[in-house]
Amino acid sequence: MTQTTVAIPDTHRDLLERPLIAHLATSRPDGSPQSNPVWFEWDGAEIRISQTKTRQKLRNIEHDARVALSIVDPANPYRYLELRGRVARVEGDPRNELIDRLAARYLNQPSYPWHQPGDQRVVVHIQPTDYSAMGADG
Amino acid sequence: MTQTTVAIPDTHRDLLERPLIAHLATSRPDGSPQSNPVWFEWDGAEIRISQTKTRQKLRNIEHDARVALSIVDPANPYRYLELRGRVARVEGDPRNELIDRLAARYLNQPSYPWHQPGDQRVVVHIQPTDYSAMGADG
Repeated sequence: MTQTTVAIPDTHRDLLERPLIAHLATSRPDGSPQSNPVWFEWDGAEIRISQTKTRQKLRNIEHDARVALSIVDPANPYRYLELRGRVARVEGDPRNELIDRLAARYLNQPSYPWHQPGDQRVVVHIQPTDYSAMGADG
Repeated sequence: MTQTTVAIPDTHRDLLERPLIAHLATSRPDGSPQSNPVWFEWDGAEIRISQTKTRQKLRNIEHDARVALSIVDPANPYRYLELRGRVARVEGDPRNELIDRLAARYLNQPSYPWHQPGDQRVVVHIQPTDYSAMGADG
């Protein structure tokens, strides 16, 4: 099923463009919620996060693709963006391309410094379907 | 049912004691997750948030009492606390006592400056039942 992604308002696009921490809400297999801080990148349409295959939140989204994210402006905590969306797909990342891009974005380092031998990474593609933008610009 | 609350490790208690923004994950009535930044207070055993009666997240927790919270150290985003828990009860707050305490904690103001006539507030009491503490102290 194709699904048009939502347009994020200009007043709050910076919260996706800047290397801020997003808090990702997922549902555990028993239906209870889970909240995790995550790095992310945004290409103007979808949000991507990197995940090792063994983590609980990957099991959660394999069970239920519905997720939510909230991102606060650290300079003004009353300005924030809440997104809801769906995991469109999960793809292998055998060359660690996304986590290395995120290391550049968040750490200004060419590759992810905490990679462990044996870690198998995937790219989680999230399509936003709804949002709430709170607080004034700036 | 009585339920003993979890002991938060000393290395991460400050994240509950400081006036930081927590991200609250709840489940909407259709089972999809929602994530909202919230103010909170912690008394060493339970977490309390203030909520107006009309907000979606109050409807969510009336439908499913299971919640999760994540709190990041703004000085070190790789140090954070993730909590899961249950809403033990929701009580009326006709004198706005909790939101005024939170205004003192977060804004250093004696009362909540954005109170609207007609807003009816409740206190949401959250008992943590499980946690993950990530990152080193300091």
